[in-house]
Amino acid sequence: MSRPLKVAVAGLGTVGGGTVKLLQANAALLAERTGRPVVITAVADRDRRDRGLSLDTYRWFDDAVAMASDADADVVVELIGGAGGVALKVCEAAIAAGRHVVTANKALIAHHGMALAAAAEAKGLTLGYEAAVAGGIPIIKSLREGLVGNHARRVYGILNGTCNYILTQMRETGREFATVLAEAQALGYAEADPSFDVDGIDTAHKLAILASVAFGCTLDFDAVHIEGIRHVAAVDIAFAQELGYRIKLLGIATQTEAGIERRVHPCMVRLDTPIAQVDGVFNAVVIDGDFVDRVVHEGRGAGERPTASAVVADIADIARGRNVPTFGVPVATLHAAPAAPMSEHRGAFYVRLMVLDRPGVFADIAAILRDHDVSMEAVLQRGRAPGEPVPVVMTTHDTAEAAMVHSLVKIGELGSSAEPPRMIRIEPF
Amino acid sequence: MSRPLKVAVAGLGTVGGGTVKLLQANAALLAERTGRPVVITAVADRDRRDRGLSLDTYRWFDDAVAMASDADADVVVELIGGAGGVALKVCEAAIAAGRHVVTANKALIAHHGMALAAAAEAKGLTLGYEAAVAGGIPIIKSLREGLVGNHARRVYGILNGTCNYILTQMRETGREFATVLAEAQALGYAEADPSFDVDGIDTAHKLAILASVAFGCTLDFDAVHIEGIRHVAAVDIAFAQELGYRIKLLGIATQTEAGIERRVHPCMVRLDTPIAQVDGVFNAVVIDGDFVDRVVHEGRGAGERPTASAVVADIADIARGRNVPTFGVPVATLHAAPAAPMSEHRGAFYVRLMVLDRPGVFADIAAILRDHDVSMEAVLQRGRAPGEPVPVVMTTHDTAEAAMVHSLVKIGELGSSAEPPRMIRIEPF
Repeated sequence: MSRPLKVAVAGLGTVGGGTVKLLQANAALLAERTGRPVVITAVADRDRRDRGLSLDTYRWFDDAVAMASDADADVVVELIGGAGGVALKVCEAAIAAGRHVVTANKALIAHHGMALAAAAEAKGLTLGYEAAVAGGIPIIKSLREGLVGNHARRVYGILNGTCNYILTQMRETGREFATVLAEAQALGYAEADPSFDVDGIDTAHKLAILASVAFGCTLDFDAVHIEGIRHVAAVDIAFAQELGYRIKLLGIATQTEAGIERRVHPCMVRLDTPIAQVDGVFNAVVIDGDFVDRVVHEGRGAGERPTASAVVADIADIARGRNVPTFGVPVATLHAAPAAPMSEHRGAFYVRLMVLDRPGVFADIAAILRDHDVSMEAVLQRGRAPGEPVPVVMTTHDTAEAAMVHSLVKIGELGSSAEPPRMIRIEPF
Repeated sequence: MSRPLKVAVAGLGTVGGGTVKLLQANAALLAERTGRPVVITAVADRDRRDRGLSLDTYRWFDDAVAMASDADADVVVELIGGAGGVALKVCEAAIAAGRHVVTANKALIAHHGMALAAAAEAKGLTLGYEAAVAGGIPIIKSLREGLVGNHARRVYGILNGTCNYILTQMRETGREFATVLAEAQALGYAEADPSFDVDGIDTAHKLAILASVAFGCTLDFDAVHIEGIRHVAAVDIAFAQELGYRIKLLGIATQTEAGIERRVHPCMVRLDTPIAQVDGVFNAVVIDGDFVDRVVHEGRGAGERPTASAVVADIADIARGRNVPTFGVPVATLHAAPAAPMSEHRGAFYVRLMVLDRPGVFADIAAILRDHDVSMEAVLQRGRAPGEPVPVVMTTHDTAEAAMVHSLVKIGELGSSAEPPRMIRIEPF
């Protein structure tokens, strides 16, 4: 059997602990499958508290950057987190010292992935980040290798378990976002500061990475249009159900004539699509390729053990000496595809107005939509309470985003709406 | 850019034609992603009819075995089909000549995969068969690489699109198996001789392969318990719906204390499971690993273009110089796990009797079940027509397979059933 692969783990939080556990528990299996022992030689964390892990035989570093430089390791696993700071320094130090890097850090890859990949590539090193997108689902491998023969037409998915949990709970209980968020926080399913999750930023990190791999384009986080789920109301979820849809926060990257469209926002998806059925904390990613057509991957998108599974897949590839360019092709050949602006997006829309029941309001609204070439498919109105705002819901046929947005501004200016008009895009999957 | 990878394609049927089309249409993409041109140098087929393909620049062989020996090729792609015969000779000749082999042939791998893998391994060659299981879904890659850190607990799936199409049509139209099969044959979704599909043999080929990769055990087709879908009646599908289930033909491999259980038969799965929602010709494979938990893959399990996608994934791995042992570990280290006998299976059951409405019949049936320790969960009876047999359906709690089978024999012997009792296993996914 070949020389052991030596691994240093930076960060002993949830995922770090899971990775140590997996490498210990399934050591014999990994040795059999990779043809060599995979052994931890060092760990780093600022906090030396007891974690219930057997760490005695590893060299301990309080300073993860020092470990990345100095440890006796072939691979440094960065599980500290954060879009820059120590995590970035650990990766840079590891590459400078000639070590492969494996990380679960989507923010880091979304912001610094290009530079890190170029540095790793220049030295013939691997920068693995399977765990950064959709947790345990081996989606990076499927995209880069399993579906390598396909031009991707579209990649989309449920990439944030917290949002999917909240939306699922809202549907099942009929409660509002704020209530369900508070519960999720109490249960540990949402962070004290939930912004990264519920405002769509975490999803956008992952989508930016997926888009780069799928389309061979430069990784451009700023090109992602981002909306979160704070404005999704219980009444929207009820109407969605009535119209035959589910509301999901999706990240969607599409090749269009105007360039690559990258967007994160709540979507209505038909009930009979695979993605509509993915509930709770589960993630799902759909790849639509020109030969393979639609392939759906579903699994746990976070958590100690599933994320460790993905981290170890990258380590095993390194152990086997298997290397694939970080984003599917060498960094220098990633093309700077134009970002298709959101204003040029076209699609169907769900629009909800809270209308004060005054004569003539609907005629005014209809005139605005007509003037903007927005063609209505259906109108639903529930209840009628004189003096109280009632929800009026419309769905449109295929419409230009810019026209829809302008219409909603004009409708808002009518003064007949008790709150700003709300819009959710309907996806034609 | 490196030396081109030269590919020879044996068999220009549906998948062969699709593979040629993909390698032509996406040649630039593949060169970019693999770092070298992937070029076809030779093709072989007994029939020189025009297929609408541009084949002029390739050397033509009428004899695929001669091509495997003599062509100027690094890789021979076997797309002839059949469990032995020419397909086997092509693979053997290619390996003997030092060429990598890629095949979509599940029957061949199920019966001769171990010997071919050993021969390829001895020469450091790849034997790729991603396309042999679940068509375009990159499931072999997910199992061998993406989920490499996991001990598989269970692998199961819908592995035959023809059966899934028939069962879906039966549910949607309420018609019987024979009628729907005839329609599927007319539409080209089922073969003139449908036995390989509807009797579960094709599913068993794929399951035998999946089990070997998932559990690192020797590939043993004869260890698979096989039942097809001919006995599934429209009334069963209606009862399943009423009980909250869908009927699917599944291949299931499970690690049990008695060994590895490998079985193919119609199953009832709860409506809210991902696999229940997979309809029509789609395939789905679920991997349940000790760290990753449940990962579901869904996509097209057959067809020219999806299967070509999988064939080309194997070719790309060869182009990149990436090699993984055929069944996840070297052939010599695959362990000969005992096959858990079906008689030792335990699970819940759906049982349907067509009972002649005579006094005392039910007491007799209940006594037999009691004597065999079969505990009933529910009993359903629909309709009542004196002198006519009426369906009586029972579901059981967790029961030993052997006890269930013996009970049904005894119930059949009562003479109060108008046809043999039917049983469908209920899976607790």
